[in-house]
Amino acid sequence: MDLTRRYALAGAAALAASPLLPSMPAKAAAPMADKQAPSFYRYKVGDAQVTVISDGVNTFALGDSFITNVKKEEVAAALEKAHMPKDKVSIQFGPLVINSGGKLIVLDTGNGPGAFASSKGAVGQFATNMSAAGIDPKSVDMVVISHFHGDHINGLLTAENVLAFPNAEVLVPATEWKYFMDDGEMGKQTTERMKGVFANARRVFDAGLKKKVTPYEWGKDVVPGLLAVETAGHTPGHTSYVLSSGSGKVFVQSDVTNIPYLFAANPGWHAFFDQDAAMAEKARRKTYDMVVAEKLMVQGFHYPFPGLGNVEKDGSGYRVVPAHWNPVI
Amino acid sequence: MDLTRRYALAGAAALAASPLLPSMPAKAAAPMADKQAPSFYRYKVGDAQVTVISDGVNTFALGDSFITNVKKEEVAAALEKAHMPKDKVSIQFGPLVINSGGKLIVLDTGNGPGAFASSKGAVGQFATNMSAAGIDPKSVDMVVISHFHGDHINGLLTAENVLAFPNAEVLVPATEWKYFMDDGEMGKQTTERMKGVFANARRVFDAGLKKKVTPYEWGKDVVPGLLAVETAGHTPGHTSYVLSSGSGKVFVQSDVTNIPYLFAANPGWHAFFDQDAAMAEKARRKTYDMVVAEKLMVQGFHYPFPGLGNVEKDGSGYRVVPAHWNPVI
Repeated sequence: MDLTRRYALAGAAALAASPLLPSMPAKAAAPMADKQAPSFYRYKVGDAQVTVISDGVNTFALGDSFITNVKKEEVAAALEKAHMPKDKVSIQFGPLVINSGGKLIVLDTGNGPGAFASSKGAVGQFATNMSAAGIDPKSVDMVVISHFHGDHINGLLTAENVLAFPNAEVLVPATEWKYFMDDGEMGKQTTERMKGVFANARRVFDAGLKKKVTPYEWGKDVVPGLLAVETAGHTPGHTSYVLSSGSGKVFVQSDVTNIPYLFAANPGWHAFFDQDAAMAEKARRKTYDMVVAEKLMVQGFHYPFPGLGNVEKDGSGYRVVPAHWNPVI
Repeated sequence: MDLTRRYALAGAAALAASPLLPSMPAKAAAPMADKQAPSFYRYKVGDAQVTVISDGVNTFALGDSFITNVKKEEVAAALEKAHMPKDKVSIQFGPLVINSGGKLIVLDTGNGPGAFASSKGAVGQFATNMSAAGIDPKSVDMVVISHFHGDHINGLLTAENVLAFPNAEVLVPATEWKYFMDDGEMGKQTTERMKGVFANARRVFDAGLKKKVTPYEWGKDVVPGLLAVETAGHTPGHTSYVLSSGSGKVFVQSDVTNIPYLFAANPGWHAFFDQDAAMAEKARRKTYDMVVAEKLMVQGFHYPFPGLGNVEKDGSGYRVVPAHWNPVI
């Protein structure tokens, strides 16, 4: 009691005395920075140059329906094992700009300006981070779309609903185009979510782009050095790519997995956004076995930024080991 | 033969014809970018703000003497397992700027302007990346030094050998100061490397700073919220830190390990730059057992940029799992 009282008194005395202490030189404390570093990152694949441009991160509460075939508790445990909060899911979005030497190619476009506004800047950062990277949307020759989910296509339009890349040819997977533009397929949809995916695809491509797109086929180069690879399941026309230049090669996986510490670690887990979950799982296992066997580096749209990694077998699943940041190109 | 000849002729014909082909619109191809993204990254620890500022990456050929107690082939195998070239070692340097709210603190300073010139910009990037982060060296209140190796102290001076942080108090570990300023200890040195470490420490602190430093003690806060922790072995006064603010806490490990995929994975490996290798190993094992038990995030000076990670036990060693990049602060 005595000791406590003595400390309390000393504390009170110090508080009382502090305004009278000889003051430090009247230098204002440095202000806190209000902005993160611009989130873009460059690397070479042979003679080609890739710029990964983050569209931001979306964080939401882990619900019961996020993964359809395992219990929430199992998902929470996997998040905790990955050193993440166990009650939340954070998903990054990483579109690419590829300079092939001849052509400047945007590969997927992020959540777009509407999402930027509604998320208060958490997502929809593609345009601002692209600007920070010194890339002018008017200089883009081609936009290649992997599939028709909103986080990949909504950045095709500006807030004024005009083309965000006014001089670019827009290339879409032929299968995806046929499926989402088919009124019969649209009429079959029974869930609000799938009705919304159809409506949004038509908002962007019909109302926005007036159907001015060039469909491309699997198994062929979309542009020289960018081979389209069928990885359907996530959507009917979901496409991945092999980007090659010289001896360089990277597998651009699009959404074969979402965040790797859940879905590469557990390839049998079915996310609610996989349209045909069984087919998506098959594509996932086939792709990951292939990249491990071929020792191919993988660029993942939903991997943590900057999203380039190597893949290892790890128990019954896979582990993605992030590539090391290179402070020069 | 016929087929080959036909192809050859077709090729020759195509070559001859190409200047006459209808040309593409005369749009110049977009130029390749010549610069990486500025390599800094911000995160919060409670109310404090940390900015990791890369000083660059040094890459050198793997030699026989890099690790003194294992064969080169074993090191090459570990590099390959980490998806790195097996004949080269790449080491990043990541000084910090900590804004504690009251004070702007630089923690270690990188390889300095001499190394920037001799490496053609591969290292010594601290000043330029700090400028890209919008931090003025004149606004820095304190520079805290973890130990006296050149990659931590050389950035204290500009190319003109004047103070790079003209308004900052320079704080150094008392044990490190006593050791490197002791003429008797200097006289005992027999290797060119250790003679060089002494000479460089004196160049910076004696010729450069005129010995205007404030020694600090282990087990006490260097500044409020930055606790100095003894992790000697790498050098006699080698210091790590616990940075705390509110409920936030990060262990700043300095050089307890160098690159984690070699030295956290194999804590018994002795790098040639560990002055007392047995003591450094003991500090390494103790530190890594502690951060695993306490689930403390670790900021590593030589981890790949940005150098913040979580640590797991992995077989007989440890694995550092990089924290995910947050595109907002």
